[in-house]
Amino acid sequence: MKIARFSDEDRIAYGIVDDDELVVLAGDPLFAGYDTTGERVPLSEVRLLAPVIPRSKVVAVGRNYLDHAQEMGGQVPAEPLLFLKPNTAVIGPGDAIVLPPQSNRVEHEGELAVVIGRIAKNVTEDAALDVVFGYTIGNDVTARDLQRADGQWARAKGFDSFCPLGPVVDTEFELDGATVVTRVNGEVRQRGELSDMAHPVAAVVAYASSVWTLLPGDVILTGTPAGVGPIVDGDVVEVEISGLGVLSNPVRRG
Amino acid sequence: MKIARFSDEDRIAYGIVDDDELVVLAGDPLFAGYDTTGERVPLSEVRLLAPVIPRSKVVAVGRNYLDHAQEMGGQVPAEPLLFLKPNTAVIGPGDAIVLPPQSNRVEHEGELAVVIGRIAKNVTEDAALDVVFGYTIGNDVTARDLQRADGQWARAKGFDSFCPLGPVVDTEFELDGATVVTRVNGEVRQRGELSDMAHPVAAVVAYASSVWTLLPGDVILTGTPAGVGPIVDGDVVEVEISGLGVLSNPVRRG
Repeated sequence: MKIARFSDEDRIAYGIVDDDELVVLAGDPLFAGYDTTGERVPLSEVRLLAPVIPRSKVVAVGRNYLDHAQEMGGQVPAEPLLFLKPNTAVIGPGDAIVLPPQSNRVEHEGELAVVIGRIAKNVTEDAALDVVFGYTIGNDVTARDLQRADGQWARAKGFDSFCPLGPVVDTEFELDGATVVTRVNGEVRQRGELSDMAHPVAAVVAYASSVWTLLPGDVILTGTPAGVGPIVDGDVVEVEISGLGVLSNPVRRG
Repeated sequence: MKIARFSDEDRIAYGIVDDDELVVLAGDPLFAGYDTTGERVPLSEVRLLAPVIPRSKVVAVGRNYLDHAQEMGGQVPAEPLLFLKPNTAVIGPGDAIVLPPQSNRVEHEGELAVVIGRIAKNVTEDAALDVVFGYTIGNDVTARDLQRADGQWARAKGFDSFCPLGPVVDTEFELDGATVVTRVNGEVRQRGELSDMAHPVAAVVAYASSVWTLLPGDVILTGTPAGVGPIVDGDVVEVEISGLGVLSNPVRRG
C-alpha cells in the first residue's frame, strides 16, 4: 500500500494511491488507521507533501555504505554512526532545496528512509522490522564545508529544506534487489544497492532503539552510497528507489 | 510569571504559580494564551512535569563557558557550536535520569534553558529576545565516554531521560547577576555566572535562527560552566538558577 500526504484547496489529508487516484483517508494512518472518507481525487489534481512530519526525530546514519565511507576518507564504523536532523528540515516532493548563504558547497545524499510505526525501545534485530510502518525516499542534504568546519553535523545537515522526503510511504516495500539512484539534471551521480548497506535496516532500527525511544512518525535515513557531489542554484535533484518512485526537488539559492 | 505543567488525577494541564497554588490555564500558554479555568490547585497536590515538550528541536550549545571549554581541553568556538537532543530525552522535575548500560561514565551539565515563543528565522541579535517565551533550567546529561568514542554527540547526549527540564518556565526572568549551580547529593560541583557565557542568549538565539526555523516550544540549552563530573546510581542531581528555582532529579542505573 502506498500512502501519500497531499494538499488540495484548503485541506491537508492522507490518501492511498490507487492507480492515478488517491482514496482519501479520514486521518493520519500512523495514528488513525485506514478509515476512508469515501472520496477519491485524481493524483494530477493534488500537490504531494512530505508523506510524514516527524513529531520527534529524524535519525540518520553516517557512512553506511563502504564505497561512500571510502570517498569520505574513512571506513564503515563498527556500530551505526547516528546523528539527528530537525523536523524543520523536512520538505516534500517538488519543494525547493534552499542553499543557505553560510555554505559554499551543498551536496546531495540520496537514501532510503524508514518510517517508524510503533513506539519502540530496545527492539531486537529480529523484531525490528515489526516496528517499521513503511519506507520512503530521503535526501540527506549536507553543507559539506560546514560539516567539516563544525565537527558536529547538526548545522551542516539541519538547515531548513535539507531533508526532502517522499513521494509516498510504501508499507509493503521489499528491499531485496532494490537500488537507490541519485540524478542531478538527469545525470546519474550516485547508484547503490540497498543490500550493500553495512548496517542493514533491521540492525539500524534495533541500534537506534537501544539509544532513543522511537515514536510513530520518526524517520531513519539509512545512509548514502558513493557519488555525493555539489548541487547549485537551478539544478534539479532526483532520488529514485526502485519500487518507491522518484523524489524530485529543484535547488535554489537562498 | 512562572508557568508550570502538571498532572493530577487523570489530567495534564498548565498553571501560573501564585504563591503555593497554581491558577489553572485552559490550554498550553505557548499556543492558547492565558485564559484560566477559574480553578486553583495547591502546588503540594500536583506532580510537576517538564514545563515544555518541544515539538521540533532541543538545540544545545557546546563549550559556551571558557572555564568548561578549557576543562574539556579546548577553547570557546568563534561561533556557537550547536547540536541537537531529541524530545524523547526530556524528563521533568523529580523524574529519574536513567544510566544506559552502554556507558560507564554519565555526567551532569547544569545550564540555563531558553524556551522559544514565536516562529523565528534569521532574527537579529537585537530582536532575538523578543522571540523568547521564557526561561527554565536544563541538565544536558552526557555519556562522556560515548561522546568521545562516537565523535558525533547525538547518541551520547540523546539517551532517554538525558534532558531534564523544569521546574517552571519564567516569562520575566532577568539573567543579570544570576548564577547556575549544580549539586550532586548536596555538594556543589558546578557554579557559573550566566553573564560569563561566551555567546550570550541573544547571540545564540540569533545564530540558531540563521540555521533553523525556530518554532514555539523549541528549547535552547545555553551551555554549562566548569565542574562537570560523573553521576551514579542513587545520586540526586540538583541544578539551581537564582530566580528560576531548583531542578532536582534522582539517578538510577537502567
